[in-house]
Amino acid sequence: MPDSRIPATKVCRFIHAAMERLGLPAEDALTVAQLMTEAEMQGSDGHGVIRLVPYARRIRAGGVNVRPHIRIAKEKAAMALLEGDNGMGHLVMKKAAQVAIAKARQCGVAWVGARASNHAGPASLYARMALEHDMVGMYFAVGNANHLPPWGGLDMLLSTNPIAVAVPAGSEPPVVLDMATTVAAYGKVKARAQRGEAMPEGWMIDRQGRPLTDPRRAEEGFLLPIGGYKGYGLALVIGLLAGSLNGAAMGSEVIDFNHDDKTPTNTGQAILVIDPDAFGEVDDFKARVDKLARELRASERMPGVERIWLPGEQSHARRIANERDGLALSPTLRTQLDALARELAIPPLAES
Amino acid sequence: MPDSRIPATKVCRFIHAAMERLGLPAEDALTVAQLMTEAEMQGSDGHGVIRLVPYARRIRAGGVNVRPHIRIAKEKAAMALLEGDNGMGHLVMKKAAQVAIAKARQCGVAWVGARASNHAGPASLYARMALEHDMVGMYFAVGNANHLPPWGGLDMLLSTNPIAVAVPAGSEPPVVLDMATTVAAYGKVKARAQRGEAMPEGWMIDRQGRPLTDPRRAEEGFLLPIGGYKGYGLALVIGLLAGSLNGAAMGSEVIDFNHDDKTPTNTGQAILVIDPDAFGEVDDFKARVDKLARELRASERMPGVERIWLPGEQSHARRIANERDGLALSPTLRTQLDALARELAIPPLAES
Repeated sequence: MPDSRIPATKVCRFIHAAMERLGLPAEDALTVAQLMTEAEMQGSDGHGVIRLVPYARRIRAGGVNVRPHIRIAKEKAAMALLEGDNGMGHLVMKKAAQVAIAKARQCGVAWVGARASNHAGPASLYARMALEHDMVGMYFAVGNANHLPPWGGLDMLLSTNPIAVAVPAGSEPPVVLDMATTVAAYGKVKARAQRGEAMPEGWMIDRQGRPLTDPRRAEEGFLLPIGGYKGYGLALVIGLLAGSLNGAAMGSEVIDFNHDDKTPTNTGQAILVIDPDAFGEVDDFKARVDKLARELRASERMPGVERIWLPGEQSHARRIANERDGLALSPTLRTQLDALARELAIPPLAES
Repeated sequence: MPDSRIPATKVCRFIHAAMERLGLPAEDALTVAQLMTEAEMQGSDGHGVIRLVPYARRIRAGGVNVRPHIRIAKEKAAMALLEGDNGMGHLVMKKAAQVAIAKARQCGVAWVGARASNHAGPASLYARMALEHDMVGMYFAVGNANHLPPWGGLDMLLSTNPIAVAVPAGSEPPVVLDMATTVAAYGKVKARAQRGEAMPEGWMIDRQGRPLTDPRRAEEGFLLPIGGYKGYGLALVIGLLAGSLNGAAMGSEVIDFNHDDKTPTNTGQAILVIDPDAFGEVDDFKARVDKLARELRASERMPGVERIWLPGEQSHARRIANERDGLALSPTLRTQLDALARELAIPPLAES
């Protein structure tokens, strides 16, 4: 393992210790640490370890309930509405996925929504939980800051509201789509700012509609939705399903968690699980997914294109490489984590 | 009503007569006619009356079963898989919506997939069927011709696979998103070709990656997905859910119904229905949707923008205008319909 890289187990122990010191019960601290490490492992750098410092700040400001009573508030055979009690989103959505998987096994399909949740990391983390049960997962969330106006407008009333879909395959990697409804996710803007790199044109515009490429000026502009009004429509309907349906925050109710550490975010998320076993032989389905993946990969390519990727294939490769080589955390992030360790009086990452 | 416009009832009677003459039982012919007229009413001109001539051609070539036994092949509490028996897609998906609505009322949520179906018109037709029950509808479909290569590729292995989402509101029009995963739907390309109008840059590219703006040359190039690789990923996962999961055609199995009138298309579609009543008071939910719609509409606007639209609001306005003024069918389409009337020996549209 290269010197600059850190084994995932070490990263997980460090986050676990930090979360426990911040007041989470040991088991919950471990769950959050495992999911945050998993996010980093699959290359979701904007939603992985980089979030630990802002999470800690919010918890210490009293903005998150460290001992939540996460419970089913409403329930029917194929659905549940979880009351997150302002707990860490990772805890709420892991439970949501578990409930959805159990109900989908009974009913063929299940939908679980959550309100009073919080930021839970990358969308694919939860959609992927269905995979080990040979099920399909879909995840929808309301983002924790509005960066998107309605199409043609200037008031930032919508977030990047992501969608993730995970589909099991046979011998091929699963197909895992994880996308914000904007050309770039805000986490990617943050990562560019931290690395001191400019953004390409097309990610953001300013209030006069001009391209904005300096990520440090991000708050002067807004993200562009994919396909123009189509991405605006997708962001809106995902927000209606993940937010409004659950009685969670949407539109002007969304708290900007970059600027407000105290007000409960009332974050809304939802997960849909489909059991292919209800539709026919699971192995036949997985073989069809394999066949399709190979067909797409074997397509003739445009000049200069080295290979065709399936959604989730690059994360899959990154996960394998990170397991082998350890995680590469930026020097800026390492410095922040060392400072956090001192503040919390826990061993630094290097000694975790 | 302006002279050039035709009342919807007349259009519906004409299609009904044509479908019955083509061999559909009277009740099925009426269902298809009503749904095709409804598509035209809401302004889905690429998926409305314009499809009658190709439908008739396909039926007469034996490519569609005019007396299908549409039945539930697999079933659990919250799902069903319909065997469409190569019937008209309108019949298959109307039944799918009915089954999904009934199951969602019991279970809170339901998903119904279909295989051996056919083209069913605009996606929103079926998502909207949930609205009159105060439910949320989502619809996914595999398109009936591949116009999209995998991202970076040249082989057209994917269709424009659309998604529609319909969300009920209170006093505001419902929010209805209906979008292809490409910048333009292929139906819009066909409509441009029929009207002799050029396409804007960004809709299609040729095999060298150059913009293609002549809709008569559409078959030399392919549609561009929204957000580049994101739209490719969306088209793929929608196809997995609506096609592969149901054992319907996907990838290279998709029949190009523009060139092949005989081979059964084995079209796959799926509908998801969510009952907001399971999540809390429906009126509270609808009031939240109203509040959000008004908030978005009241946003400060960019220079030159006259108003902010919600998804579905323009179709809603068009439906009201078409009810008042009648339907405007292009002279080219009128000529085609007159020729069809002669071929089928039914009264022409003007006398329907």
